[in-house]
Amino acid sequence: MLQEIVIEVWTLWFVLVSAIASFVVAFLLKRRVANADPGNEAMVTVQGYIKDGAAAFIKRQYITLAIFVGVFAIVIGFAYGIGVEGDAIPWYFMVLSYIIGSIASGWAGWLGMNVGVDANAKTAQAATKGLAPAFNVSFFGGAVMGLIVTGAALGGVWALYFFTGEPRYILGFSFGASSIALFAKAGGGIYTKTADVAADLVGKIEYSLPEDDPRNPAAVADNVGDNVGDIAGMGADLFDSYVASILGAMLLAFSEMINNNFDIMDINTTTITSFPLVISAAGLFASIIGIFLIAKLVKDSPGKALNLGTYLATALFIGISALFTLFMTLGVNLSADMPSRLWANWGAGVFGVLAGLVIGITTDYFTNDEKTPTRATAESSQQGHALNILTGFSYGLLSVAPPVIGIVIAMGVAYALDGLVGVANASTGMLAIVGTIVANDAYGPIVDNARGIAEQGGLDEEVIQLCDRLDSAGNTAKAITKGFAIGAAALTVLALLYSFMEEAKNVALSYGITTLNLHDTNGIYQLDLMNPVIMICALLGIAVPTVYSAVLIFGVERNAQTMVKEIRRQFEENPKILTGEEPADFEKCIDIATKGSLKELTVPILLAIGTPLLVGILFGIQGLGSFLASSILIGLTFALLLSNSGGTWDNAKKYIEDGNLGGKGTLAHAAAVTGDTVGDPFKDTAGPSINTLITVMSLTATMFLVVFVRVGDGMGLLTPFLI
Amino acid sequence: MLQEIVIEVWTLWFVLVSAIASFVVAFLLKRRVANADPGNEAMVTVQGYIKDGAAAFIKRQYITLAIFVGVFAIVIGFAYGIGVEGDAIPWYFMVLSYIIGSIASGWAGWLGMNVGVDANAKTAQAATKGLAPAFNVSFFGGAVMGLIVTGAALGGVWALYFFTGEPRYILGFSFGASSIALFAKAGGGIYTKTADVAADLVGKIEYSLPEDDPRNPAAVADNVGDNVGDIAGMGADLFDSYVASILGAMLLAFSEMINNNFDIMDINTTTITSFPLVISAAGLFASIIGIFLIAKLVKDSPGKALNLGTYLATALFIGISALFTLFMTLGVNLSADMPSRLWANWGAGVFGVLAGLVIGITTDYFTNDEKTPTRATAESSQQGHALNILTGFSYGLLSVAPPVIGIVIAMGVAYALDGLVGVANASTGMLAIVGTIVANDAYGPIVDNARGIAEQGGLDEEVIQLCDRLDSAGNTAKAITKGFAIGAAALTVLALLYSFMEEAKNVALSYGITTLNLHDTNGIYQLDLMNPVIMICALLGIAVPTVYSAVLIFGVERNAQTMVKEIRRQFEENPKILTGEEPADFEKCIDIATKGSLKELTVPILLAIGTPLLVGILFGIQGLGSFLASSILIGLTFALLLSNSGGTWDNAKKYIEDGNLGGKGTLAHAAAVTGDTVGDPFKDTAGPSINTLITVMSLTATMFLVVFVRVGDGMGLLTPFLI
Repeated sequence: MLQEIVIEVWTLWFVLVSAIASFVVAFLLKRRVANADPGNEAMVTVQGYIKDGAAAFIKRQYITLAIFVGVFAIVIGFAYGIGVEGDAIPWYFMVLSYIIGSIASGWAGWLGMNVGVDANAKTAQAATKGLAPAFNVSFFGGAVMGLIVTGAALGGVWALYFFTGEPRYILGFSFGASSIALFAKAGGGIYTKTADVAADLVGKIEYSLPEDDPRNPAAVADNVGDNVGDIAGMGADLFDSYVASILGAMLLAFSEMINNNFDIMDINTTTITSFPLVISAAGLFASIIGIFLIAKLVKDSPGKALNLGTYLATALFIGISALFTLFMTLGVNLSADMPSRLWANWGAGVFGVLAGLVIGITTDYFTNDEKTPTRATAESSQQGHALNILTGFSYGLLSVAPPVIGIVIAMGVAYALDGLVGVANASTGMLAIVGTIVANDAYGPIVDNARGIAEQGGLDEEVIQLCDRLDSAGNTAKAITKGFAIGAAALTVLALLYSFMEEAKNVALSYGITTLNLHDTNGIYQLDLMNPVIMICALLGIAVPTVYSAVLIFGVERNAQTMVKEIRRQFEENPKILTGEEPADFEKCIDIATKGSLKELTVPILLAIGTPLLVGILFGIQGLGSFLASSILIGLTFALLLSNSGGTWDNAKKYIEDGNLGGKGTLAHAAAVTGDTVGDPFKDTAGPSINTLITVMSLTATMFLVVFVRVGDGMGLLTPFLI
Repeated sequence: MLQEIVIEVWTLWFVLVSAIASFVVAFLLKRRVANADPGNEAMVTVQGYIKDGAAAFIKRQYITLAIFVGVFAIVIGFAYGIGVEGDAIPWYFMVLSYIIGSIASGWAGWLGMNVGVDANAKTAQAATKGLAPAFNVSFFGGAVMGLIVTGAALGGVWALYFFTGEPRYILGFSFGASSIALFAKAGGGIYTKTADVAADLVGKIEYSLPEDDPRNPAAVADNVGDNVGDIAGMGADLFDSYVASILGAMLLAFSEMINNNFDIMDINTTTITSFPLVISAAGLFASIIGIFLIAKLVKDSPGKALNLGTYLATALFIGISALFTLFMTLGVNLSADMPSRLWANWGAGVFGVLAGLVIGITTDYFTNDEKTPTRATAESSQQGHALNILTGFSYGLLSVAPPVIGIVIAMGVAYALDGLVGVANASTGMLAIVGTIVANDAYGPIVDNARGIAEQGGLDEEVIQLCDRLDSAGNTAKAITKGFAIGAAALTVLALLYSFMEEAKNVALSYGITTLNLHDTNGIYQLDLMNPVIMICALLGIAVPTVYSAVLIFGVERNAQTMVKEIRRQFEENPKILTGEEPADFEKCIDIATKGSLKELTVPILLAIGTPLLVGILFGIQGLGSFLASSILIGLTFALLLSNSGGTWDNAKKYIEDGNLGGKGTLAHAAAVTGDTVGDPFKDTAGPSINTLITVMSLTATMFLVVFVRVGDGMGLLTPFLI
């Protein structure tokens, strides 16, 4: 349909090429991992348990998801099918787009996780040959996820835009990816911490077993958790953010052009609309090169290699995107101001990615055991449990400020460069090197598992120590990538908020509603906190991320309690487990984690999807916008607080376990373990899931605009009584 | 000057009468406390220590405050003096108003606290005669604070309005009260928790001494802390909120009338402007009667008497305010719509106070040891420290939602009744019975101290148990009053936000600036989150309550560490302290708490006053408004989270100490003590101080509008580069 676009805007082909390139490289790397030596029989057995456990969880999750997606496909069909007027998107297309998005994200997560699981034992085995071989297996294992996620996301968005020429069709795809992310991130987060907390509470504290001890019935579930939570969940989360950031930027640019009476097919419209796609392609090429550079760079210090790789990918992104922007400015028939506009947006993207780096580095400060916060938290543990909690929590509170200032600077500069479109492109720029970010992130759980398998497979102490070094590098890299992810999610949801309001205007206009008039004039553009209806909705918005976090933490606790009872039961009923004469019943624990984590998802999903629907219907479009804005502010605060305090506690414990402040067996260590246990659901369940929550809320709002606009002419049921 | 007002609006005289009545009753009650039997020599000695310690702290604090107020008086003088055009307030008047406000609040706090300290030992002594006599001494002791605070605040506001006829003149008074509150609440909060945490860490945990053991060198500092933090600090905090809520409502009503071209002296202007004062007078009468009813009602259950008294005061307020409103509607020359408007605002006030009650009751649910949250937290303690923390924290997160919904309903109904003026009057209504609230609140630390003095004075176990019962009643009452205070503070600062924006328009107009134009039209009225400058400032706003909380918690920790060292030093250097042969050196601990808590205030004060100044100068008036709005949202969230999770932990510990779940000496108890210690600075330092923070920020913003409007025509230094 829109192939003409691509003839004029030939840089769009780069997008397809980048997606294909990422698939090709991913499959080459996958084969490399597949061909590596899987190690001794014990290792293969353990790896088999992990693989089966992960598959069982994903299978169960995907069945639930299939039902969920099916139901929502029908809901979307009705929302877009019944009584829809104007230039609304045909219902069958929105449903199709939604289903494709779900499948693409689900497929990427499944494939990437499988390679990750496959790389576990092979990394442990490669570690017998040295650091570089082990690093390469694990890093390539993670890189497959990075490339598949980015390729599938970018390819999907490209195809939808290519065949329709309108970014609004991508909305379904993005919402589909969000549905998957909600299940994968929150569900995986509950799973992984259920097993981790339960394994620690009984194994470590009650029975003094070491970490990953094969006698612990929760040991395999703990390893499975790393894969389903930290690999599959994280991949789905970043797939979601990545698509949403591109969608937000395309929607805003497109809508602005149409409002300025440019034709859909005008070269200016297509150029500025496809800009986010093209710079994302630049980021994907940069990530592919970056991945190979990291593998080459690793000599002694895998941590340095990962971080250096991130910096290099950033530099490459800046260079390649400049080249692509130059190509775009050469487009025929561009209006006179378009080249400078493209450069301005390139600048916004560059500022975005640099801000992401700065945010990552400041986040690192709060969780790095060579810096004051973690050291002070470790030292306060000497005064007992309470001061450990207070110190870590307070540093978590402090850690909110620097990223916020980073986001503010990126947003301010981007806005000065090209208004809201600039802001949206800053978020696209921040997420452009997501391939590298996901690769670094997925590396962590792979080496973490490798360490466990080396332990369980009876490999030499030397090999285990090497795995420990690889693991610690993963933690270093994680600090930066996590800051990156939170910063990027914040900018993305802000862009989504703006595109929600833009879309609201378009949808309302298609129903003949010219103003919502909640305040003075031009109401529909505005979220004026001076209007009490808007303020009321902002107040309601603060309840969602808080209740959501509480429910997830409770979910982990409840599930962990069930597993704790099961572990105790096994130890009590069969004393031979503790002596190592008989194997523990891993499957029982895996089953508890699997069933429990899906069950605990009901309320979080209702909150994420139900509350925007309710607020939209009760208070209308502007109220919903303000509700989203406030959830974004509170969500960002808690995402940073929970993630960073959790990271500080985790590393304070590791610092003490490294022999500092008296090491293990001291009050300081016991207190640090308390902090770490509190931090587990903070940093790996609730904290990072808030990003997904906010994205899902924003997309739900945009997706169901066609409904809200029909309730009280977009004012909702209650607003008329209040004004 | 404006005496004519009071001839026409004769109900205004009720305000003066209510203030005088409250003073008279307060002095009668003060004499009654003064005449009570002070007990044996040991008790008088301990009471003397507490009195001296409290006096030392207040003296030092007031010297610092005098310097602070002096400096700020000069700053205000310059801000209002130099180059001010239009109808701005004369600088000398604003300075005077500011100084009067500081002195009134400082005086009320000082007097009320002294009576509270005086009542401590006398309550313990009266307990030898039975429950009712002991209750009456302690409750009357607290009631003096309630009445003095309300009387001084209402009298001050009345006088300023009476002599000027313009509510803007009250701004200085309110800002003065805020300065005191900032020092008293945050400083007192650090003081009290420094002593409490240190006494627990060394005395209870390391040396297994019971609570309030006279051998503990921090025991007296702990008792002093109750007085300076929970009595003087709380009194100053509610003085501040109370004045601010009346000011906000008066400013909004006045400004609206002037904008509708009513004359300042018009009966309609004066009637609707003085309405908040008149219903506050109704509340004060209700409180006075309520206080006597509570004293009569107490038979077996002091807790029930306190709560029943609050309900009765509420009912009385509704009745008396209806009567006063009726009188106001009878005013001659009122325009036709004014009576129904007055009734609408009465309705808003009634809805406010009822919402306050509902919020209090739901808050109670989360901290009452007969309800699920506290029980579940206690039970989870059996699994160790970490699960205690996770459970209490999660319930704290959940507890944010119900009060928010309560505030939303009150605000929605009030807005439907009479727009922003209605919202402001809902906050006035919520705070109208503040006399009862403060009385109930101040009762708590008095009986807490009485218990300590009974212990230290060697009274019978029976008497100590009776004091325990009185203490536990204080905790029950506190749950409801605390919810009340947070809800009222939230509505108050919202009213302040609206009056800030109203005032901004007036001040800007006086400089010939007709629009700030940050978005489309009528810019100055708007805080449109769709504008990225507004969003940037909202993002910055989230950093203030978080950093502020962190700094206060760190302050407690740091100070407690110093005191912990001192206690250990005393025990190690002089073993006779532990055997009871020689007295501990209390003064050293008091000195540490006093100096430390004032030193730790520097950063919190800079945040509260400095950040609004900075944002106002950099981003202008609208940016500052959005910064405030976001600080309100985040502040409310953290105030509820920190206060309620702290309350849950505290009561979970008490529940276990009452012998449940194995009682003392178990892992559950150790874990519950950890939770309580974490909760101490949460619920008594950071949580309640956030109210003060937000009020101070809002008042600073309004106070220095005359400066902001002169920077870039009210747009600030940076905004022009961004738009």
